[in-house]
Amino acid sequence: MLPFTFQNPTKILFGEGMVSRLGEQVRSFGSTILLVYGSGSIKKSGLYDQVLEQLKSIDARVVELSGIEPNPRLTSVYKGIELCRSEKVDFILAVGGGSVLDAAKAIAAGALYEGDVWDFCIHKAVIQQAIPLGTILTLSATGSEMNGNAVISNWELKQKRAFGSPHVYPAFSILDPTLTYSVPRNQTVNGAVDIMSHVFEQYFSRTTDTPLQERLCESILQTVIENTPIAIEQPDNYEARANLMWCGTLALNGGLISAGMQNDWASHGIEHEISAIYDIPHGAGLSIVFPNWMKYVYKERIDRFAQFAERVWGIKRDSRSDEEVALAGIEATRAFFTSIGAQARLAEFEIDREHIDEMAKEAVLFGPLGSFKKLEQTDVRQILEMSL
Amino acid sequence: MLPFTFQNPTKILFGEGMVSRLGEQVRSFGSTILLVYGSGSIKKSGLYDQVLEQLKSIDARVVELSGIEPNPRLTSVYKGIELCRSEKVDFILAVGGGSVLDAAKAIAAGALYEGDVWDFCIHKAVIQQAIPLGTILTLSATGSEMNGNAVISNWELKQKRAFGSPHVYPAFSILDPTLTYSVPRNQTVNGAVDIMSHVFEQYFSRTTDTPLQERLCESILQTVIENTPIAIEQPDNYEARANLMWCGTLALNGGLISAGMQNDWASHGIEHEISAIYDIPHGAGLSIVFPNWMKYVYKERIDRFAQFAERVWGIKRDSRSDEEVALAGIEATRAFFTSIGAQARLAEFEIDREHIDEMAKEAVLFGPLGSFKKLEQTDVRQILEMSL
Repeated sequence: MLPFTFQNPTKILFGEGMVSRLGEQVRSFGSTILLVYGSGSIKKSGLYDQVLEQLKSIDARVVELSGIEPNPRLTSVYKGIELCRSEKVDFILAVGGGSVLDAAKAIAAGALYEGDVWDFCIHKAVIQQAIPLGTILTLSATGSEMNGNAVISNWELKQKRAFGSPHVYPAFSILDPTLTYSVPRNQTVNGAVDIMSHVFEQYFSRTTDTPLQERLCESILQTVIENTPIAIEQPDNYEARANLMWCGTLALNGGLISAGMQNDWASHGIEHEISAIYDIPHGAGLSIVFPNWMKYVYKERIDRFAQFAERVWGIKRDSRSDEEVALAGIEATRAFFTSIGAQARLAEFEIDREHIDEMAKEAVLFGPLGSFKKLEQTDVRQILEMSL
Repeated sequence: MLPFTFQNPTKILFGEGMVSRLGEQVRSFGSTILLVYGSGSIKKSGLYDQVLEQLKSIDARVVELSGIEPNPRLTSVYKGIELCRSEKVDFILAVGGGSVLDAAKAIAAGALYEGDVWDFCIHKAVIQQAIPLGTILTLSATGSEMNGNAVISNWELKQKRAFGSPHVYPAFSILDPTLTYSVPRNQTVNGAVDIMSHVFEQYFSRTTDTPLQERLCESILQTVIENTPIAIEQPDNYEARANLMWCGTLALNGGLISAGMQNDWASHGIEHEISAIYDIPHGAGLSIVFPNWMKYVYKERIDRFAQFAERVWGIKRDSRSDEEVALAGIEATRAFFTSIGAQARLAEFEIDREHIDEMAKEAVLFGPLGSFKKLEQTDVRQILEMSL
């Protein structure tokens, strides 16, 4: 186990009807609220009205920024920053999925920074302060509701980059599983893949002697595997939705489940290059890339992949070698993704090899990707080839 | 899953040598520090000198309170409160195991309360504020390093009572596994039993549809079971000590592993009555009581006990009934406790039935104990009888 520091101050309010506690949570932060949301599905569901009612009950002045994209764009972040400055916003409330939350974090940090907020994404500046923010989550996937991370797309540069800071942890996040009942099937699927991928990035680690952390990871994976098919078949199954929601939050939680472990994040790096150019859903990109990454790197630690196969997928060892069991686990991962309707090939999005060199080159712009196996440009290119 | 709120702001600094970061952590809280510790083993180990050096490096004025007892006594808390007031203490630093940490929390809350700090333990008052505190942990057991709970013994009244408050979460806790190398064998054993018992209190729950939480509990139990014998045999095995330490912290972490589950805490209630009168180690009392509690209540949810047997102890089902498997799991628990040298009977502390009625009566002073099965006075008496 490696040394680590851990702190996660976000307050979680979890359960049906928790939106009724929004007003009391926001009250202490000030009176002008920037409400950030996406395409307007929160208006159809009635959540928007509930939120406004809560904010009205504390006499808040509400400024709105809607239309945040699925891969949130820098242009939307700029709009939010402008609003924060012109309207003297005290608090940002993000209502939506990971994209909305990530955009809100970028706005929160960018509004108090004199330079270009994109600087945070390209390691040109470090976040020193941010407007406080809170979230109401409507999609189980990202973990953004209880961490300090965000991913922003710069559409002009065709770049998708992440930043992280203790200053953008949400002050609170309201997690009501019933708000995810109306999530379309493909988004439920992509969310499940995203949660599992977050765990994979932590679980497939070179760090040894981390038995508790490994089991925490396996616990989330098993629970997602059990509950995703239920949520797909019965979109209003409270327990399945609740289990997925809590899995998503704990999966990427400021490092909780992998404290003391080196993380990888190469697959996310590769996926970001794909969706930076083709704007495909993050979860779909991960579903395509991750099993191929696994096949490409598993020999680095066959023992971990064999453990994954046995504990997560319940694969019996019988008389097989570690390597055979490991490969069976990777196949089971692909089979599960396919069974829930997740994509397996870039061709399903009509993506061919046209930009493959460009993606491989961009992926390693700041150096080799990952730590489980350090991937150079040629490695990334091969994984992309396997994904076509 | 039940609705819940969760927030845990404590910052963890985990790993060998983390004491070197004490100064920077304390600096922002002020200049007069109350240093709380126990019997003086920290002087033998050299930790005391390191701490003073760190505090000197930030020009802190140090006031000392030593001699905190294993079951920390109200009289010691009073002394600490007096010191906080007379010396105008800005920050409390607890260096030790759970007893020292718990005493520090009571001092922190009591110093800013006009009435008797004991009021918090008997539900006569609710903590509204506290002097900020930090901890350096020297024993893996309590979880007190990352929660808002404390247990105090009132020796005059022969009462041992718990309180909890968001105001007494440590601002930071330094967890260096090497500081536990010198923990005597019996304290390592009692600590392991304490950690497992904390998980039991949460895991044996009537709440259904909590698959992730159950697995998180099982993860900790399995890891403690694997690592305790190693730590006993090789007291300076870093990995075993680190694993136990992180298990202890996550096991009782403001409700993290059982968010959305009803907890029980009857066995702790019973143990508190025993050690309130006989002053035996908390972990030893739990080792005696818990398997008997299990035998007494398992029929309330045979399925959960059977799952416990299979997943935690790896007991094969074969052709046995749920009940047979459940009972085998309880036997395995007792056998494990015995194998690591934990006590099984009150007689080992020369405790007979003399005060058994008194303990049973006191245990239910505020109503029936627990929630898995609500225990009345006669139930508690029977569990105590089974424990003689």
